[in-house]
Amino acid sequence: MTATSVPHVVIVGGGFAGLWATRALARDRVRITLIDRHNHHLFQPLLYQVATAGLSAPDIAAPLRHILRDQRNAEVRLGEVVQLDASARRVILADGDSVAYDYLLLASGATHAYFGHDDWAPHAPGLKTLDDALALRRRLLLAFEHAESCDDPAERAAWLNFAIVGGGPTGVELAGTLTEIARHTLKHEFRNIDPAEAKVRLLEAGPRVLASFPESLSIKAQRQLEKLGVEVVTGTPVSAIDARGYRLGDRFVPARTVVWAAGVAASPLGALLDAPRDRAGRVQVAPDLSVPNHPEIFVAGDLASVQQGGRPVPGVAPAAKQMGAHVASAIRARLRNAPTPAFRYRDYGNLATIGRNKAVVELHDLQFSGLFAWLFWLVVHIFFLIGFRNRLIVLINWSWAYVGYQRHARIILGKDQLP
Amino acid sequence: MTATSVPHVVIVGGGFAGLWATRALARDRVRITLIDRHNHHLFQPLLYQVATAGLSAPDIAAPLRHILRDQRNAEVRLGEVVQLDASARRVILADGDSVAYDYLLLASGATHAYFGHDDWAPHAPGLKTLDDALALRRRLLLAFEHAESCDDPAERAAWLNFAIVGGGPTGVELAGTLTEIARHTLKHEFRNIDPAEAKVRLLEAGPRVLASFPESLSIKAQRQLEKLGVEVVTGTPVSAIDARGYRLGDRFVPARTVVWAAGVAASPLGALLDAPRDRAGRVQVAPDLSVPNHPEIFVAGDLASVQQGGRPVPGVAPAAKQMGAHVASAIRARLRNAPTPAFRYRDYGNLATIGRNKAVVELHDLQFSGLFAWLFWLVVHIFFLIGFRNRLIVLINWSWAYVGYQRHARIILGKDQLP
Repeated sequence: MTATSVPHVVIVGGGFAGLWATRALARDRVRITLIDRHNHHLFQPLLYQVATAGLSAPDIAAPLRHILRDQRNAEVRLGEVVQLDASARRVILADGDSVAYDYLLLASGATHAYFGHDDWAPHAPGLKTLDDALALRRRLLLAFEHAESCDDPAERAAWLNFAIVGGGPTGVELAGTLTEIARHTLKHEFRNIDPAEAKVRLLEAGPRVLASFPESLSIKAQRQLEKLGVEVVTGTPVSAIDARGYRLGDRFVPARTVVWAAGVAASPLGALLDAPRDRAGRVQVAPDLSVPNHPEIFVAGDLASVQQGGRPVPGVAPAAKQMGAHVASAIRARLRNAPTPAFRYRDYGNLATIGRNKAVVELHDLQFSGLFAWLFWLVVHIFFLIGFRNRLIVLINWSWAYVGYQRHARIILGKDQLP
Repeated sequence: MTATSVPHVVIVGGGFAGLWATRALARDRVRITLIDRHNHHLFQPLLYQVATAGLSAPDIAAPLRHILRDQRNAEVRLGEVVQLDASARRVILADGDSVAYDYLLLASGATHAYFGHDDWAPHAPGLKTLDDALALRRRLLLAFEHAESCDDPAERAAWLNFAIVGGGPTGVELAGTLTEIARHTLKHEFRNIDPAEAKVRLLEAGPRVLASFPESLSIKAQRQLEKLGVEVVTGTPVSAIDARGYRLGDRFVPARTVVWAAGVAASPLGALLDAPRDRAGRVQVAPDLSVPNHPEIFVAGDLASVQQGGRPVPGVAPAAKQMGAHVASAIRARLRNAPTPAFRYRDYGNLATIGRNKAVVELHDLQFSGLFAWLFWLVVHIFFLIGFRNRLIVLINWSWAYVGYQRHARIILGKDQLP
């Protein structure tokens, strides 16, 4: 960078970390290029609602260009970063273009990981993008269609057998919602099957669901799931998944629909850095979130491995937003040649929803569950949705769903694989 | 059919004709199987709104099972009819299953036709299904992204050159809305291009747009389009379309985005019947909408060729609904061995929207255009949308769009073809 030019900050990834960093730099004398493979910021905490047909894709996403239209120092570039030349300070895109930077923030997030079993991927899709959500919606709805038009009782049972692998918040949300759909939403809609006979199993290898919550809330969550009709299996890892079903311990369970909510791996962009990474591929950053030996490169969000008080900072939206904002102030400090402070994660609590009027909430010493926890969850999530319109539409959709158990987005998109 | 069993009515296609026939038979002593390739009824008149990002896919579609959940004599079968054995009275599905019928209604609609130029199809997609609409939305939004990230002025201009082939209602709606998006919605969102520089051309081979309307309204529509910024070209057919652009008369126009709104061809299912068909593949039915020599087979909607007063009954939603209801009464008459009346189309009028507060309306001798026509169009379309929830959401989306020129569904779905 020459002394007279405006420093160029390149931010890779328009998720919570990247977008919050971009916004935090709005009044600084920098030029920002935000690069993302998608044209939208995605409110990932509600992705399971798109997969389970409660919300439309545009309800939980907003075009990055629209969000940043009035931020004159920022431009958005739709593209995929495939290479990094740290010595020449430039990133290279899939279309061959390269973009030079003075400061770089890598915030490309995480994807699902199959723990060395990549052959499970086609049989147990995960949930990270809107395309994932629409593909999963299609799969869940088609399973009931297959069961309805199938004459063989064993095959029919396999189509009505659903398994969610992984008892974290996403797994719990999916299992609870899917059970509600089978028991309530689809009531009266089929003639040859009773959708309520669907079996939804939540498979958690560890000793309890929602392992990041206090044990008492895990127990409450499991009880609430069971009350909804979910069969919760803990302590046994899944040892195989194929097109016919899955293996749990010694037992093979025929099931046509298995959903992967178990493991995350950091985005492959972390590997482009010459920096130590943890087992999940997350970059082990310096306390100020910069990369060792590269004070001009930062990593934030799910791609960053940050320890605090001996525990890892969790891969949740509030942590990503805080890291994004921190990187903005670190860049500001660098520009003034001032020392950069260490990142400090402020943990405001933890919440997970289980289904209609069921949730668990932990706010430091305060823990609660049930209807009040669900209302709290609802308010928090609607409040944090970007854009007034989305909030209003989502609230209407949910009121509607709550009153009538209806899920308006039960539209199968895509042409292949009809029953 | 044996005298003791309940007659089985098989209806192929859950569009306006098939669904209205199904509902009209709700209280009759028949068993109905409604077969469709999609799990939803689609409100096709608003499809262009999904393509232009004003509405989400689920806003204009409702699951057929949900619509018919309380109609106990009807069941829905998701599947694609590929063969018809009229002598054995059964249809065969793509999965190999066959379904026997006593009465059959073919109402599988129409698809787009390229008048013998099928090689144009990949370069000029049409708009008939939700998947078409989402693919077109993707294409329209990506064109601006390509222009933004492109350095070559000629290529940039080609990305900002849009052509809509066909000046019927769909073409007019698409051209008007796309111009609004370029001039208003995308304002301030790009840094390297001015989206308002986009050229939108509406290409009509005939002498005027909206040929099915009175000439005075065609003139008004063209004037309103031009006021919005659309360049309307009439009287010259497109003679070639490829990946680089299109040929109009002697002139080749570089354009990366061409949309096909020109021709329709009846669904290929019509060819399975041993019956005369018109040039567009529509089945020439008897006055009661049955197929000559097959009193147990009926055809309705866009697949049927019906003349009335020397003019063809138009391929619009009200005609399809009326035909569906007529087939229901014809089947009822057959069951009583009573004579079946001839179908009579009641034409309530014709309306087309052009853009924000612009439309043309023809109600018999009454013709009007402009804001009042637009409000009339809005009320009619929202009123006919299936399901209260959809009406409310669509109304909110439109109010929002009207006040702020915003289109909330500008979300690019699908992974391929990033710029």
